[in-house]
Amino acid sequence: MTNDARYDVLGVGNAIVDVIGSVDDAFLSANDVAKGGMTLIDEDRAAALYDAMPPSQESSGGSAANTMAGVASLGGKACYLGKVADDQLGQVFAHDLRAAGVDFDTAPLKDGPSTARCLILVTPDAQRSMSTFLGASAMFADDDIDADKIGAAKITYLEGYLFDREEAKRAFVRAAEIAAAKSRRVALTLSDAFCVDRHRDSFRHLVQHHVDYLFANETEILSLYETENFEEAVERARADCRTAFLTRSEKGSVVVSSEGAQTVDAVAPDPALVDTTGAGDLFAAGAMFGLANERPLAVCAHLGSIAAAEVISHYGARPLRSLAQLAEDAGLAETA
Amino acid sequence: MTNDARYDVLGVGNAIVDVIGSVDDAFLSANDVAKGGMTLIDEDRAAALYDAMPPSQESSGGSAANTMAGVASLGGKACYLGKVADDQLGQVFAHDLRAAGVDFDTAPLKDGPSTARCLILVTPDAQRSMSTFLGASAMFADDDIDADKIGAAKITYLEGYLFDREEAKRAFVRAAEIAAAKSRRVALTLSDAFCVDRHRDSFRHLVQHHVDYLFANETEILSLYETENFEEAVERARADCRTAFLTRSEKGSVVVSSEGAQTVDAVAPDPALVDTTGAGDLFAAGAMFGLANERPLAVCAHLGSIAAAEVISHYGARPLRSLAQLAEDAGLAETA
Repeated sequence: MTNDARYDVLGVGNAIVDVIGSVDDAFLSANDVAKGGMTLIDEDRAAALYDAMPPSQESSGGSAANTMAGVASLGGKACYLGKVADDQLGQVFAHDLRAAGVDFDTAPLKDGPSTARCLILVTPDAQRSMSTFLGASAMFADDDIDADKIGAAKITYLEGYLFDREEAKRAFVRAAEIAAAKSRRVALTLSDAFCVDRHRDSFRHLVQHHVDYLFANETEILSLYETENFEEAVERARADCRTAFLTRSEKGSVVVSSEGAQTVDAVAPDPALVDTTGAGDLFAAGAMFGLANERPLAVCAHLGSIAAAEVISHYGARPLRSLAQLAEDAGLAETA
Repeated sequence: MTNDARYDVLGVGNAIVDVIGSVDDAFLSANDVAKGGMTLIDEDRAAALYDAMPPSQESSGGSAANTMAGVASLGGKACYLGKVADDQLGQVFAHDLRAAGVDFDTAPLKDGPSTARCLILVTPDAQRSMSTFLGASAMFADDDIDADKIGAAKITYLEGYLFDREEAKRAFVRAAEIAAAKSRRVALTLSDAFCVDRHRDSFRHLVQHHVDYLFANETEILSLYETENFEEAVERARADCRTAFLTRSEKGSVVVSSEGAQTVDAVAPDPALVDTTGAGDLFAAGAMFGLANERPLAVCAHLGSIAAAEVISHYGARPLRSLAQLAEDAGLAETA
């Protein structure tokens, strides 16, 4: 069925360049930044917040793009669809993704807003608080959906953040429909608890009807089902989709499927926790690399934990070390 | 004499954004990059080399700009003159310098080449090999020389790299003349052994007639005086300028003045050596902060070593920790 697949995973998401700076909690309060979440901001607010920020470093980000970089680092074949502008930061984004080994050729936006930026403020507790100006990424549209590539991917991975703009949301649903029509698998990440709040009904519909694999952290899954009871959320997720990967930070992850729910331990960051940016993105990379290669669910979650542990041990949302090597070191290399 | 100074140090240099990636030695050979040096490249070569580079991080650089960020981090008043383009990387450069506390308002270039980029390839031995596309920075010109600001700085610091373009070189010499006319002090860094090779006669003239403080590493000073004998170079430097700071990596620095030559120990990077980019720039920052505050020469060199040790303990050419705090921890806080 999937023997003719050219890609293990194809990701669709907001194409964003991260601007990372270290601040203290007082800076977050003084500048009205919600700690730990992702807030959408307009260009004026982005300019004002950037002015207030300390010296920063730029690196490519975007949730699903980070995930594709992770899949490639594990040795998987990855493809990405997302929109940058025809500007310097757009060139940086495209370079970094291609240099990571990800197939990426969505046409850059010629006229219109600039490439999306996410201002990431990292506090001494390693938490990241994100303020995103969507810019060109929100102009991702139907025309950018490459049906041929989606049909060639074992799994199409969709980022919940895309729901924040109407046009991107339509493209998103279309991608899911194409994948389903070609008997491919569809995965979704809920992205962020605030994002779930904004789009709860759409997400529930999608999870029930289109999604094979659901990725969510604890607050996101509780928000999706409007409950404070994690066990209840687990049961609801099990009824709604084939497999759900529910991540709980240092408490590990819970894999929910028709076989029940199993807990998989987290992997400790080495040498230490520095910046939690990208943890969920890289967990999904590891898990989907495993799923695409038909590994047992517990192994998939373990691969996710290894990838997440690498990315939280340094600044930036993409792996700096070879995830394939880390997986091999952990005894998870695939036996041919 | 200097009581009316608004700035401790004013730096003039090529305004550059660094693009930093990790590679192995084979990559340097395969792409004809000279290890350890700085090579000037044109826009086509920059595009080709960037295409070949792994995923990278962008951060503000430029030798004298790094030095000014260091002066500010030590608690000094710093000002910078240099040219970026009116583009995204130019905005990044301006933001990072201002956010570091450095006065910077050179008008960005409206039409012409884009903001300068330096592709920095860091090898596992922590050496950096730089390929620079000068772009807008080479359009720094007479009009950009702010005589009022130069007159208001105790020390005007000039970067040898500016000599690589004729127009910038003229502006450079004019800055030195203005400083001298206002009885201010002039400092020069030779920047790079290849740079010295390109401009030996001009540098010698400048050192003999305009320079109070000379900064050079061992290979640069040997190249300036075309000798293989370090002691001979020391004597020549002593004859030519008021004070020379000659840096020798982990062997420390030699301060040469009318009082003789004294060796000051290096400070070990904590916890480890990661990337030597910015070592010389930050040594100059510490030394000039001391000079501007009339500290003894050995203390100036010690401050330089502290600043250099900080910047080589992480990726990127600007300090991430407060240098004022590190100086205080080392018992070098100024007693009022």
